[in-house]
Amino acid sequence: MSELKSRADELDAADPLAELRRRFVLDDAVYLDGNSLGALPAAVPDRVADVVRRQWGELRIRSWEESGWWTAPERIGDRIAPLVGAAPGQIVVGDSTSVNVFKALVAAVRMAQGDGDTVRDEIVVDATTFPTDGYIARSAARMTGCTLRAVTPAEVPGALRDRTAAVLLNHVDYRTGRLHDLPGLTAAVHGAGAYVVWDLCHSAGALPVGLDEHGVDLAVGCTYKYLNGGPGSPAYLYVRSGLQPRFDSPLPGWTSHAEPFGMRPDYTPADGAPRARVGTPDILSMLALEAALEAWDGVRIEAVRAKSLALTDFFLECVAAYVPEGRVESLTPAAHAERGSQVALRTVAASVDAGDVMKRLVERGVVGDFRHPDVLRFGFTPLYVGFGDAERAARVLAGVLG
Amino acid sequence: MSELKSRADELDAADPLAELRRRFVLDDAVYLDGNSLGALPAAVPDRVADVVRRQWGELRIRSWEESGWWTAPERIGDRIAPLVGAAPGQIVVGDSTSVNVFKALVAAVRMAQGDGDTVRDEIVVDATTFPTDGYIARSAARMTGCTLRAVTPAEVPGALRDRTAAVLLNHVDYRTGRLHDLPGLTAAVHGAGAYVVWDLCHSAGALPVGLDEHGVDLAVGCTYKYLNGGPGSPAYLYVRSGLQPRFDSPLPGWTSHAEPFGMRPDYTPADGAPRARVGTPDILSMLALEAALEAWDGVRIEAVRAKSLALTDFFLECVAAYVPEGRVESLTPAAHAERGSQVALRTVAASVDAGDVMKRLVERGVVGDFRHPDVLRFGFTPLYVGFGDAERAARVLAGVLG
Repeated sequence: MSELKSRADELDAADPLAELRRRFVLDDAVYLDGNSLGALPAAVPDRVADVVRRQWGELRIRSWEESGWWTAPERIGDRIAPLVGAAPGQIVVGDSTSVNVFKALVAAVRMAQGDGDTVRDEIVVDATTFPTDGYIARSAARMTGCTLRAVTPAEVPGALRDRTAAVLLNHVDYRTGRLHDLPGLTAAVHGAGAYVVWDLCHSAGALPVGLDEHGVDLAVGCTYKYLNGGPGSPAYLYVRSGLQPRFDSPLPGWTSHAEPFGMRPDYTPADGAPRARVGTPDILSMLALEAALEAWDGVRIEAVRAKSLALTDFFLECVAAYVPEGRVESLTPAAHAERGSQVALRTVAASVDAGDVMKRLVERGVVGDFRHPDVLRFGFTPLYVGFGDAERAARVLAGVLG
Repeated sequence: MSELKSRADELDAADPLAELRRRFVLDDAVYLDGNSLGALPAAVPDRVADVVRRQWGELRIRSWEESGWWTAPERIGDRIAPLVGAAPGQIVVGDSTSVNVFKALVAAVRMAQGDGDTVRDEIVVDATTFPTDGYIARSAARMTGCTLRAVTPAEVPGALRDRTAAVLLNHVDYRTGRLHDLPGLTAAVHGAGAYVVWDLCHSAGALPVGLDEHGVDLAVGCTYKYLNGGPGSPAYLYVRSGLQPRFDSPLPGWTSHAEPFGMRPDYTPADGAPRARVGTPDILSMLALEAALEAWDGVRIEAVRAKSLALTDFFLECVAAYVPEGRVESLTPAAHAERGSQVALRTVAASVDAGDVMKRLVERGVVGDFRHPDVLRFGFTPLYVGFGDAERAARVLAGVLG
């Protein structure tokens, strides 16, 4: 047995989170794509069956009250809250991430314009963002009479100016796995009198976010990556409690009304987090997510972060040991303060087709994903990925790369 | 046995759709709330279990291709299409009705403004609409620089003018069950050079809509009423094929991109129906809906309409026979051409609490719903409601009203 394999066994044996793997349905594959679609939590199938057969099939319409359907968006939001450092009453679940980015960014611009200190007519967006955020930001700018400027997160402090209304940033870069400085950038945006919207898709559930602690204004995130909510499960929207009275939604649907069953022709927004709701909540997917979140019972996000860094450190060490020099290079920062919970390796030789490499890895039981044109992404989900998985993935990668 | 009970038995025995009830999970209750939440189709539980356990739990990320997740929004849209009189390639499923109203209305305004014949800066909305449509219309107006005018559907032809950009109408009034003149109103809107958006929530699956035949521009609808998709199941958006190249979405998410996995910073909209997509599709709810739609296999919507009218006629006849005169009055038009698939009865005496009446009906196994302040709604879903149900509901109502 190689020295690294022995090390992996020791690390797994000493891992206080190792037993959490039993909370998921897994097989012998090394699943390193939980940053794209989290594995199935064991509690989900029976819960979903109950929601379908009993809550819908037997109670039918009564379930809106009796099964807690109506309040699910806030209740599940409160279940996510501790994972992102938010006190209760600030998160609602529903809609897709894209739709929530639109709500958050338009609301942020309106807050900035409502401050009235100066003309604020510019949105700044992370130029390295997952594309949907950029597309939606452009639409939000167009529909609020703003211009849109795309800069890298590092350039944000220098780019802020009097006319900046809102800034949309990613906590972790989807491609490289780079972790951005949420406290510092939030403070910089506030220093310019603007509002910040953070996209937490690639950080929530992998590392501490500290939304309340760092005074974040608004945040959005998906729930199907590190939160394991299932394919296309509903996203969430955080609105800091102090800003909720000023949250002026571009999508004021009936379920965000102060009196949703009053059927009033005029819109009066609800107080608190429900103000960010829109239409009828998507119950099947939402309650599957609620069951999925039980995998977090008793889990401290700080412990998850410690294991995540240990895992990515160890994987990089194994790659360096097993893969001949010059075949791949890491796009993921070496510094812990700049690393999320994934490792992105770029294939260096032009003759190597990264898409083909990933295909062969998958055939050999190591599942990551490929990002055009030359990036191999490996996500490390500390709830169910172990050190033995990291060692095996690096070993198989070395074999595939020859 | 009363004469009406005998008639009910005869009608049920002669009903060509009677056997369809076996495609649903039902009990002994008379379920007349399918216009709010459709009953559970029998095919759904096993399908959902397969989606959760096998597609998500075993295939995981591979299911985006192998299980047809990625193309589900268009595929399921094409399954709904024949029910609303649309050729394939014009409907996508996803998001809530409210979000789709926003997409459709903003896109309609942009089409009108793009025509450039005159300044078009007004949205006309059905003043009797389900509230969310009005709230969203106000937001769409605000964000496109339009004014908003609310008029009743009957007033629409007279209210149209040169500056009208878009008109948002309901096919069937959620409260009274009144069916509006879709062909005539569509022609009137077109005559004024404007675009029409129809909300089909209370008509799709209950009667023929004829979107293509009548030249409708855009339409939205939910899938959890007469389509039985489950609580909060995804809504759909129809964009007439000839207008798709001009569909300029206010929510241009990554999955509506011409090359969604190209991860390009600039947005290039996809051709065809996928242009109306936004974020990652909500797979659990979407595939539950797909299974639910199998209840429509071999069913002609014209036959559904014929039974629906016969059911509501018969229910009104039973109410007239059983309920002492002066206790309730029907808000639902007597004329077939003006009636959807529900009967709304108003309690006439001020001393009668309609909410309490509905509570007692439910206790006695007749499930309808209550709309503030004095309306009892009874929805007739021809796929699983029979004439015996109608007779029993009227009889129990008479008993409750004393």
